[in-house]
Amino acid sequence: MRILDAIKTPQDLKTLTNEELTILAYEIREQIIETTSKTGGHVASSLGAVEIILAVHSLIDAPRDKFIFDVGHQAYAHKLLTGRLEQFDTLRAYGGISGFPRPDESPYDVHPSGHASDSLSIALGLAKARELRGTDEKIVALIGDASLSGGMAFEALNTIGQLQLPLVIVLNDNEMSISRNVGALVRHLGAIRSSQTYREARDRSQQMLEESGALGNAFVDFGRNMKESIKQFFIPETMMFEQLGIICTPPIDGHNIDDLRDIIGTALAADGPVLVHVVTKKGAGYAPALADPERFHGVGPFDIATGNSAKKIAGPESYTNVFGHALVREARVDEHVVAITAGMRSGTGLKGFAREFPDRFIDVGIAEENAVGMAAGLAIGGLKPVVAIYSTFLQRALDQVIVDGALARNNIVFAIDRAGVVGADGPTHHGIYDIAYCRMIPDMRMLAPSDEAELTNALHTALRIGGPVAVRYPRGAGVGVPAPSNPETLPVGVSRVLREGGDAAILAFGDRVASALEAAERLSEQGVEARVVDMRWVKPLDEDAIVAAAKTGLVVTVENGILSGGAGEGVLAVLAKRGLQIPVKVLAIDDCVVPHGSPAQLLSGLGLDAVGIADAVLSVARH
Amino acid sequence: MRILDAIKTPQDLKTLTNEELTILAYEIREQIIETTSKTGGHVASSLGAVEIILAVHSLIDAPRDKFIFDVGHQAYAHKLLTGRLEQFDTLRAYGGISGFPRPDESPYDVHPSGHASDSLSIALGLAKARELRGTDEKIVALIGDASLSGGMAFEALNTIGQLQLPLVIVLNDNEMSISRNVGALVRHLGAIRSSQTYREARDRSQQMLEESGALGNAFVDFGRNMKESIKQFFIPETMMFEQLGIICTPPIDGHNIDDLRDIIGTALAADGPVLVHVVTKKGAGYAPALADPERFHGVGPFDIATGNSAKKIAGPESYTNVFGHALVREARVDEHVVAITAGMRSGTGLKGFAREFPDRFIDVGIAEENAVGMAAGLAIGGLKPVVAIYSTFLQRALDQVIVDGALARNNIVFAIDRAGVVGADGPTHHGIYDIAYCRMIPDMRMLAPSDEAELTNALHTALRIGGPVAVRYPRGAGVGVPAPSNPETLPVGVSRVLREGGDAAILAFGDRVASALEAAERLSEQGVEARVVDMRWVKPLDEDAIVAAAKTGLVVTVENGILSGGAGEGVLAVLAKRGLQIPVKVLAIDDCVVPHGSPAQLLSGLGLDAVGIADAVLSVARH
Repeated sequence: MRILDAIKTPQDLKTLTNEELTILAYEIREQIIETTSKTGGHVASSLGAVEIILAVHSLIDAPRDKFIFDVGHQAYAHKLLTGRLEQFDTLRAYGGISGFPRPDESPYDVHPSGHASDSLSIALGLAKARELRGTDEKIVALIGDASLSGGMAFEALNTIGQLQLPLVIVLNDNEMSISRNVGALVRHLGAIRSSQTYREARDRSQQMLEESGALGNAFVDFGRNMKESIKQFFIPETMMFEQLGIICTPPIDGHNIDDLRDIIGTALAADGPVLVHVVTKKGAGYAPALADPERFHGVGPFDIATGNSAKKIAGPESYTNVFGHALVREARVDEHVVAITAGMRSGTGLKGFAREFPDRFIDVGIAEENAVGMAAGLAIGGLKPVVAIYSTFLQRALDQVIVDGALARNNIVFAIDRAGVVGADGPTHHGIYDIAYCRMIPDMRMLAPSDEAELTNALHTALRIGGPVAVRYPRGAGVGVPAPSNPETLPVGVSRVLREGGDAAILAFGDRVASALEAAERLSEQGVEARVVDMRWVKPLDEDAIVAAAKTGLVVTVENGILSGGAGEGVLAVLAKRGLQIPVKVLAIDDCVVPHGSPAQLLSGLGLDAVGIADAVLSVARH
Repeated sequence: MRILDAIKTPQDLKTLTNEELTILAYEIREQIIETTSKTGGHVASSLGAVEIILAVHSLIDAPRDKFIFDVGHQAYAHKLLTGRLEQFDTLRAYGGISGFPRPDESPYDVHPSGHASDSLSIALGLAKARELRGTDEKIVALIGDASLSGGMAFEALNTIGQLQLPLVIVLNDNEMSISRNVGALVRHLGAIRSSQTYREARDRSQQMLEESGALGNAFVDFGRNMKESIKQFFIPETMMFEQLGIICTPPIDGHNIDDLRDIIGTALAADGPVLVHVVTKKGAGYAPALADPERFHGVGPFDIATGNSAKKIAGPESYTNVFGHALVREARVDEHVVAITAGMRSGTGLKGFAREFPDRFIDVGIAEENAVGMAAGLAIGGLKPVVAIYSTFLQRALDQVIVDGALARNNIVFAIDRAGVVGADGPTHHGIYDIAYCRMIPDMRMLAPSDEAELTNALHTALRIGGPVAVRYPRGAGVGVPAPSNPETLPVGVSRVLREGGDAAILAFGDRVASALEAAERLSEQGVEARVVDMRWVKPLDEDAIVAAAKTGLVVTVENGILSGGAGEGVLAVLAKRGLQIPVKVLAIDDCVVPHGSPAQLLSGLGLDAVGIADAVLSVARH
């Protein structure tokens, strides 16, 4: 029997020796690899944080003590140690456990992790609440180096340094960011890591690992081989954080249970804020993930022995890639085009762009506010910046979109990837608000392309019409329409009719167009002929098309986004303005939190698939 | 003739000696004081930055070179030097020049300043554009110490340190923040300022000023008396910024033209980013503003000789103060209530709360993301945080409101001050988006009180019903309804009918209720009897009241906010859902940028006053 099977709560860790904890770390890695090889998931980060999570849980009394995860995709070990071993094979599946900490899933999950850089504010708030309530629970936040570039983390550090309330920040410095050279802060961390004394210690530990032959195996056993504590080493660099009043430890080996428990234990006893600087390897303990941590950051099912990803069923290219290719083509003919990403070079499809136009590619790291602000500066400077950010993360930069982007009518293209429900990542990641928050902004324009060709044309159009223009497109594969090699400029605010019909009109936005066409097929079989309009533009709406739709006597709108403030409400406003009183059914996400699961499952559950659309038409038509 | 009258463009500064520039600084101060004594404005900041602005403009060639102002309320001298002397008496008035840099007002204004901490991103984008275009213009950003606490500034510094593009950051360290003790960063700046060598130099300069007798006058002449340059002094503290790869100067006297031109000139010639640390006095040169920089931060008309503010016409208390008093009363009976502000202790009416409950009051500085994140932590920790932020600045924390606040259904009250058009500060400051961005969030609830009593009850209600609740209220005076000493808990989603009428129904939100009542009076005189409903709740909407309103055959909605995504569209959605087809007129801000001017002027221009409401009813009723 594994030690892991005996762990029902983190309390069960209290009786284990460091050697047993090290074995347990091995078991947890095996479990994570075994499960995620079937479910997919955030493998590399979760493997890297196993010892940290074990060390913290062995030292605190959760859920009374609070353990907060930044982003949260590194928390699989935490899930396994807090009573979710048996459900672990349902990871990220519809109805199963979430891939992130979720307070509604477990009392051990402090807050809904998912968006980077918020853990320190949460920890600070908890520490202040503790002070006011006069209690003494421990508070630990685990944050990766990449998350530190987010301004929210800095804002929190500023107040943490001021208030001097006891809390422990475990900085999981996995050296990922430095390789991608995003930001001076990670270079600062790099300087600390590369200081002579730390380097010597690390080299020794690697040598020991190599001598033990472990690196040759798919499963690498970290930690046990590194016997020497490096905690007393003097680090010549001063941590920036110390100037903010936060005590910092020298970097310690994040795969050595002895060191981690020693240092974190000391930090927990301090009477002020302490930052424990821990160096880990993403993918630690699993050679394929170590070798390719970027692919194993978020990965689908894979073969354990080789690490090879399960063959994808041949199908259309993702919208992300279609966007990436289209942008490269635009950049080839217009040297003013520059691309900005906020730590998502690969995720936003910009790898090819970065390769072909390294000077015109900017990765600011996890820093959406600066990404949009910098885009405004680039636009003022005469260029045509394209800011590619996931819908859910652009929420971080709403104010910059309004003030720095739109108010000055700057020529900025907001490429909003992962728009609509995103699937397995769930509520923190669904991109369902962008229509509402873009519609409200004067001078903003927004396209919602319905297929690959439309996306290509939309980008082409956005780069030509000037001013702030958003293009939203969903996660995952397109519908199989080839992208045009000579994209066209779409007329602003003009929709296209894809199917004629006089009984009703379905006004569809973005990826709901395909479902609307399918719904029209179904309706036709039942004798109801529905017009299907690809609205193309969320803003400005095609008022003529809406008026024409009203003449059918029944309008149904459908979009992959929230209802309140959505495009459907915009259609209602146009009809009201025009004095047209007809039945309208607005299909959208009606004021609810959408769970995790496959997009198809979710859209079906929300009544936004072909069945739901057809039912909506029939419910009114027969009324 | 003054030197100032001869300055048509900043080019005219080139021929002036440092002595003449120092005289010009005096003239500019006189002009600022004279004009703002009539118009009101941001006096203290603008007086503090006169020499900096003169020095920079004497060294660069604007508008080819770019001079970017953070926040922008310190830019009056810039306006006077860039061709706006003759219009300066129209400052902040309807149709006059803006109180902030505005690209649509002058080519010398680089971007629409107004929201703190964005200048560094703008400068960085401009520097990157310059690199790609192969040009050589100079780029200077002027940012105050308070703005540095905003995460966006840190995000930009991180990328500035990485890219190493030449640009000059003038840090206007006016020691304001330090006195209020917000954040560890300002303490760090304070440590630098208080280092022995700098302190000695400053003491000498003050001594000289005192010996010259200048401090005794209302007009203090800064700069000329300080002959010694302090630029060569060695500063023992390492600036945090240097660890980010940004060269920093020791602190220099920001009222000494010689030093400023010397150091900034050197910085402009550097081949990488340089931060020039300048120490100034808010209100410099005008004793009343020096003595009370907080009042003179944003001040109405005042008497020049005494600095006393013009007597306000006796009238109702401001909503801000009503909120502040109500919160103190709530805190007295519920020890779980804590208050958070983001650098706006006085502006959000929390001075009394801070005095009575210093432990339960938190000012995080300009750091809205952390304010909301910390509120989430406080709520998870069992307290009832009330986050008081201006509507326009809460845009900075949208993501935190969604993820950290609402998704976990945390008990947080968002006290949204300055909701609706705010008046003289104009487009960057109007709080017109909060209804749209709160409506879209599941589990969020929002009240829009229509008078002082309603605000008091709304806060009371928000603290009792749990979950995330927003309360929005406008800038300025209430309507004169006394606040109840025993506030009541309002039923969720229930409106109140204030006037009966069968010909039409006006569904009014917040401060538009008073105008709706006035409109109903006018309509009655014309034989049209309109029901007036104070909707009270933006979310959830009172569906029964909407259905009842529809029975009159004509519904008009009115709100002080943007139309797209606003409450009126929500009413349309309810009517559509209920299958009710009647004429509806939605009155709101219809997709346009609202200029500066008095709220009454603006609301009238937007058709949102009593006349506009009555006209809307008649236009449909007679149709």
